[in-house]
Order: sequence, then structure tokens, then C-alpha cells
Amino acid sequence: MSSLLKDKLESARKNQDLSIFDLLSIDDLSQKDISLVLDLAEVFKQSKTEKTDILKSVTMINAFYEGSTRTRTSFEIAGKNLGSDVINISGSGSAVKKGESWLDTTETLAAYHPKIIVMRTAESGLPNFLAKHVAPSIINAGDGLHEHPTQALLDLKTMLDYHKTLKGKVVTIVGDISHSRVFGSLVRILEKYDATIRVVSPQTFIPHEIQQFKVTLFTEIEKALPESDVVYALRVQEERGAKGYVPSLREYSKTFGISVKRFALTKPDTILMHPGPVIRDIDVHSPLVTHKQSKILEQVENGLAVRKAIIWLFGDRLDKKEKPYQLI
Amino acid sequence: MSSLLKDKLESARKNQDLSIFDLLSIDDLSQKDISLVLDLAEVFKQSKTEKTDILKSVTMINAFYEGSTRTRTSFEIAGKNLGSDVINISGSGSAVKKGESWLDTTETLAAYHPKIIVMRTAESGLPNFLAKHVAPSIINAGDGLHEHPTQALLDLKTMLDYHKTLKGKVVTIVGDISHSRVFGSLVRILEKYDATIRVVSPQTFIPHEIQQFKVTLFTEIEKALPESDVVYALRVQEERGAKGYVPSLREYSKTFGISVKRFALTKPDTILMHPGPVIRDIDVHSPLVTHKQSKILEQVENGLAVRKAIIWLFGDRLDKKEKPYQLI
Amino acid sequence: MSSLLKDKLESARKNQDLSIFDLLSIDDLSQKDISLVLDLAEVFKQSKTEKTDILKSVTMINAFYEGSTRTRTSFEIAGKNLGSDVINISGSGSAVKKGESWLDTTETLAAYHPKIIVMRTAESGLPNFLAKHVAPSIINAGDGLHEHPTQALLDLKTMLDYHKTLKGKVVTIVGDISHSRVFGSLVRILEKYDATIRVVSPQTFIPHEIQQFKVTLFTEIEKALPESDVVYALRVQEERGAKGYVPSLREYSKTFGISVKRFALTKPDTILMHPGPVIRDIDVHSPLVTHKQSKILEQVENGLAVRKAIIWLFGDRLDKKEKPYQLI
Repeated sequence: MSSLLKDKLESARKNQDLSIFDLLSIDDLSQKDISLVLDLAEVFKQSKTEKTDILKSVTMINAFYEGSTRTRTSFEIAGKNLGSDVINISGSGSAVKKGESWLDTTETLAAYHPKIIVMRTAESGLPNFLAKHVAPSIINAGDGLHEHPTQALLDLKTMLDYHKTLKGKVVTIVGDISHSRVFGSLVRILEKYDATIRVVSPQTFIPHEIQQFKVTLFTEIEKALPESDVVYALRVQEERGAKGYVPSLREYSKTFGISVKRFALTKPDTILMHPGPVIRDIDVHSPLVTHKQSKILEQVENGLAVRKAIIWLFGDRLDKKEKPYQLI
Repeated sequence: MSSLLKDKLESARKNQDLSIFDLLSIDDLSQKDISLVLDLAEVFKQSKTEKTDILKSVTMINAFYEGSTRTRTSFEIAGKNLGSDVINISGSGSAVKKGESWLDTTETLAAYHPKIIVMRTAESGLPNFLAKHVAPSIINAGDGLHEHPTQALLDLKTMLDYHKTLKGKVVTIVGDISHSRVFGSLVRILEKYDATIRVVSPQTFIPHEIQQFKVTLFTEIEKALPESDVVYALRVQEERGAKGYVPSLREYSKTFGISVKRFALTKPDTILMHPGPVIRDIDVHSPLVTHKQSKILEQVENGLAVRKAIIWLFGDRLDKKEKPYQLI
Repeated sequence: MSSLLKDKLESARKNQDLSIFDLLSIDDLSQKDISLVLDLAEVFKQSKTEKTDILKSVTMINAFYEGSTRTRTSFEIAGKNLGSDVINISGSGSAVKKGESWLDTTETLAAYHPKIIVMRTAESGLPNFLAKHVAPSIINAGDGLHEHPTQALLDLKTMLDYHKTLKGKVVTIVGDISHSRVFGSLVRILEKYDATIRVVSPQTFIPHEIQQFKVTLFTEIEKALPESDVVYALRVQEERGAKGYVPSLREYSKTFGISVKRFALTKPDTILMHPGPVIRDIDVHSPLVTHKQSKILEQVENGLAVRKAIIWLFGDRLDKKEKPYQLI
């Protein structure tokens, strides 16, 4: 089975490895790392449903301490379709609830010798801390309000599939910046690729930390949309208390929602993106979700491909972190 | 491994495909479809624990948005024993809870290119709606108060294993009709097989829609049981509010429960069936559960076999739905 | 893949089988059974991440009706790494909640023909009851306050890895005895291996049943620790109401917690053990968790190895229980 896919993968990889042992932040990735991931992701995307047993010797733990369907499923399918054993862990019933420290929980998982631990946590920075102490590669699948690096990689792939380069291109990010780890990773990768970044958001959704990034702030969406090559809508995250920052979701939608009329201000080759789940008629008006310029489902497809690439790269290397199991 | 089983399966299948791309309602199945499923199910049943990798190239999503152990487990084992990658999704933590539409959630899952999505929903008709819009085959594993087609198929197999034909046979269904999707599928398949259908139930458990089916209503169980070839007890579904329709479960049990004394009114070859979970001494009195005429555990076994047949048929075909990804 | 591991396993096994069909209590295991498990576990431990498909024809159900991460994950990885299909069941959404009896739930699972059902229950003795009625091998992964036999086996392996024998060795168990199924299995296996057993605990944590075991009770930890070859700390199980038995966790920690100062009373080759999850600074003071004499993570590793051994032994045998499916 799938010797063809395996050959294509080996050929695209050219014996390269990532420069990192854990995927924690977009900051850690070199341009070469990103190119490698995108090249392999393209091979996986072309192969669609073709499977391979390239990682049949690997065990991967999918530890989603915060609820998720889309990302957890994407990582799980990625791992299983490559032949890995995949073990899911969720927050409920976990040892942390019994009073165990995060470090002990993670060292326990590491003692089962998985090659990879994918981790989503409510706590910002937790995967970074844990990665320093355990041998398996930690993949950050979203940590608090900090980062969600595989999302940024799939977003980058989606943008580059339509606009060969991001240099000089305008990417306009609309919505709740302050509660968004998607933004945290996206803005970092866009800077690496020299995109011109616009942010449109209610003042209350702009965190202080935005100053560290080269972005132009807009409070009127009509002024930000023209010239945009990419319009990237974020979700108003009610479950993170975002509703406390806007008078009402309806008010937000009236002022910042991507409506058909507003999207008409963009160019014919502008693409519309959203990390999902879309709250129809709040973030994005319903007819746009399936508009021909909407690439929302392609983002999902690219997500699976990007995650297969990353899992393969971490799952199939012999060298190890220098000082795992380091004591504190 | 299992080349023997594979050969037997191919030989029983004779290159046939189902006439449908989704299993939503018993209404959609032709007699030929049903025969094909039953023939293959028999091969799987005979093979017991033998596995095959006949679906090793398939990914299947098991989306149980409503709680279930028995049916979810049955589908999961069926998929895994055929070599498929199986990904479970449950209601908790799902994107729908964050405000995503069912269509977007399902199109997201479809973008991972699974061949099959098994789906249980609290909403009647939801699988039908979604099946029109996505490429994977949707298998309805219970939708609200509407249907549960694989249950009816396994029930039919169980009845035919003991009574070669249902033509002229009396099948008496006892219990809470109005809250039962099992009844919805069962009555449809019994009509296709020309069974004589009796329904015994408190008036409050009889829905208006019963009129569309050729059934004879009884309110006295003692009058309905004699001549019955099959006695099919349903569960009083407390979690769906059924208790509001009867004075008490004890009262229900006294008047409609299948007691040893009542079951003695039937014939020596009458079989007792129940879709499970049995609420002992309410639906069926305890000694009858393991009575030699009880086929309750055989229903469970047949369920696994029937689901293997259906998953194989959907998982192993090259042609596709005509217009999936159709926009709304 | 893994023909090497397979050969090593076959060679260590020497065609032996366990004398039991279910692993319910340490009481049921002969010395020969235990040796066989430990020998195979050592082969698995040496093989670390190496997989085998030695159980590719097996289906195993992992039924954790009570929350668990560590043990469930350990069994799941053990099963999957041996090639078995593993199906997880948790308490939520289970049929028992709908009113089904435990026996019917378990007979339903058995009707899917798994070879093994791993089971954790809040009810003491439930696995014993169920094992008498179903064909699959039941592995008790913790039943109420009764036993947790695989924990005792991995603990024994850890002790023997450091002290060749337990004969004449002092094992001091510290903490909440009355709420601990870990204690229930540990004390039984230590007696079989002729260890000298000390128990240090607040009086309120000593159950009446302790009288059946040959243990010496201490209420002052400083008196119990010297001469100890193994110090085994248990967790104060808040979720089982343990806090009602001590004035406060802080008070418990002050009087019974294993502090650096207290552990200094032991010998240079004394090992510190804990079944996890550790509540740092309550059961065991933080610096000791990663102390060189602490074997807590090795217990976890040994747990995976022991469970692989047991699953293999139950999964790979042709003979069956004499009277399963026995009616009640």
C-alpha cells in the first residue's frame, strides 16, 4: 500500500529535518523549516485519501485538555493515516483534576515513550514549559491566548496557493484580536513573509501587545477592505468572554461583520478566510461562507495536509532533544 | 491475514453495490439492497472474530452527537475490524456548541475526506439534510424520533434467522412508540416484508403519525400476544420524557411489561426481541431476558455483522454522489 | 516489522499460559503466573518503543466507567502497540445510565466478541461478578476500594528491579489505606513475596479489614522509615472523601507527608514509590519526586510493560473459560 505516496514524500523531503524538536511558536521556525512543511503538505494534499504506513512504528498522544473537534480530529486523522497509533486524552477525568502537576502528568505520558505529544491547553505558554522537560516532541495545538502554530502554517499555505508570494500583499485581519491565539501565530508568520498587515477591530478587542507587531490598525472596516488581497475573519469567542467587550453580537456584526456589501469592496482575486468555526451572520454573512472567493474549506483540507507533514517530520527522526527529562 | 474471509465476502457480494449512497431511512432501501446487506452480514456473522483489511484505505468518522455506547461501539468495532481508521466525535466540546452551523461542521469533517460519516443526532431529519451537501456516505445511526435504520436491518436479520419469511407472520411491538426511532425504522422494514404488525401501547404513547402504517392497535397486551411470532419490546425512554405519559413506570410495567405469565400466551417458536438497553422488570421481566426464546444478545451480534456489511459496501465503491458540496 | 521482538517474546514465554482466564485479584495469581508476567514485561520494557502485530487478530474493549487518564492510556497503548483493535468506553453516555443492568451491558459488549475487556468500576467486586458470566477475559483495572492488580504487578516489578528479592525486605506504605484499592492489591502481592510490611497512617485511614493482613501499624512516620527498603506513598484521595478523615491536607502533610528530612532517615538504596498521581507537597515533598531514589516514572514505564504482557497472555490463547454466558 501507498509505496507511491511514500516515494513522493521521500523525494520532496530530500532527507531534510526541521531545525526544531518541538513546534511551540511560529517564532522558532526558520524559513527553511516552513518551506519544508509546505512542500510536504502539498504532496499530502495531492494524495488526498491515500494512506501510508510510514509511521507505523510511532505512538502519538493527542492531549486536548481544552475542548476541540476540528483540530483534534485533524491531528488524529493525520496520525492514523500515516500508520501511527494515536491515543486521545481529554480534560475530563484527567489526573490534573486529581491535583497532579502538569509536569508530572506530562512526564507520565512521556514515560510511555510516545514520539509525539500534541497538546491543547487553556494556559498560555504551558507547552513551552513542558517541552523543556520531556523527550517526546511537543506540538502546540493552541495554548491559551498565545499561539496556534499549525493554524498559521495552514493559513500560509492557503494564501500562497492563491497569491504566489505575500511580499507587498495586503492581509486584513478582522475581529476579536485579544482573545485569539490564531492571531498570535498568524501575525508572526505574516511578518516572516513580508505581508502588509491590517487589523480591523473594535478598540476593546485590541490588546496592548499588538505594538510589538508591524500592523496598521483600522476601526472602520470599509477603509481597510479595499486593496486587501486576503480578508481573514476571526470568530467572536463567546466562550472566552468576548461578549463583555462589545455591546452585543448584533452590534458587532453590524459594524465589523463581513457582509456581502462590504466584501464587494475587495478585488476579484481577494480571498476570504476564517479559521472556523464560523458563526454565520456574526463573523461572516451566510452567503459568503460558500462564495467562490471563500477558501474556508480549503483551509481545513490544508490543515490535514500540514499536520501530516509535521507529524511525519517529528515522527521520523532519530536524533533527540539534548536535555529532556531535565529536572526542576 | 483473512484472505479467506475476503474471498467469502467477494463471493457473496458478486460485485453488487447498494442503490443508495447514504443510509438515511429504510424507505430508501430496495428489496435487493436489503438482501445484499443480509447476505453479507451472514458471512460476517459466521466469521465471528475474524478480521480483514478490506477497508485499509478508508477513513470513517463516527459522529455521535447524542450519547450512545452500544451503537457507537458496534460501528467502531465494525470499522476497525475491517481495517478502516475510525475517528470518534462526541457532542461535548464540539464546534456546534461554539455556534457553528451543522452544515459547516459536517462540511469541515467532509474536508478531511472520510469515506463514511456515521451520525447520531438528537434532531430528526438532520442526517438527510446533511447527506445532500457532503461527499462522504452518511449512515444514520439514529436521528431524533425519526429512524434508526441499521437497527431495523439487524432486527430483520434476527427475525428471518428464526422465521424464514415474515409473510403472514405476526410481529407484535410493545411499548413506547411515540419516543422511538427504533419503531420508525422497524415498522417500515416490516411492511416491506409483508409482516402483520400489531402495536400494544398505552394510548398516550401512540403518535398521530401511526396512521400512515398498516398496523393494528391493541391496548390490552393479553389480546395481542397470542398468535405472535415475534414479540418486540421497546424501552420506556425516561431520558426523552416518556415518564410524563404514564402514571408511573411501575404502573406501565404492571399493564404492559412482558412478564413470564404473559409471554406464556405465545407459541413455542415465538421469539422475544428488544433493541436494548433493557430496563429489567419494566420493559421485560428479568427471567425472560435470558430465556431460550429471547434473542436479545443475538440482535447485538447481528448488529455488528450488519454494520460491517454496510460499512464495507459504502467504503468500497468508486462511484460518487452526483452533487455533493452543493451550496445552499 | 518486529519479528525480532516477537521472537524474544515467544522465547521468554516458552508456550506457557496463565492459570487464570481473568485478572481480578492478586489472590488468584500463582507465583508461576506472576513470574511469567514479570519475565515478559522485562522483554517488553527492553524493547521500549518497538511494536509488534502479535495481537492483530484481537479486539479489546477498554471500559473505564470511572475516570482515569494514566491507567486507561497505559492499557490503550499496550493494546495498540501489540496490533489489537482497542475500543474505549467511558461512563458518560453509557447504557447503564439509561437503566440497563451491569450484566446486560457487559453481555452486550461480550456479544461483539472482544477477546479482552479491561474494566474500571466504582463498585468493588463488580468485575468478579461479571467475569463469571461472559466469555472475554476481564482485566480489573481498579474496582472501587477493592483491588487494582496490574498496579501491584508493576510495583512488584519495580521493587524487584532494585532489590533482587523481597524476602526480609521492609516495605513501608504511607498514607490513606482505607480509600486505596492500590493498597488492596499491593499488600496481597507483598505477602506472597514474603516482604515485611509496615503501614504508616492516621488512625482514621486504617480500615477494619487491615487485620486480615500481616502488617505492622505505625502512627509515627519517623519510627517507620528507618530500615525501610521501599517507601511507598499513597495519595490522599480527595475525590473519594478522604479529606473528611483528616483535619486538613496541610495537617496530613505535616504529620505524614514524605519530606526531604524524613526521607533522609532511610538507607542509600531505599527506593521511593508512588502509584500517581502525586499531589506534590502533600503526599511527597516536591524535591523528592525527581530524586534519584524516586522510581515513580519507572513505575509508569513498568506499568506499560506489565500490561503488554498481560494483554498478550490473555489475547493469545485458544482455550476458554469453562462456563461463560452462564445465566443468572
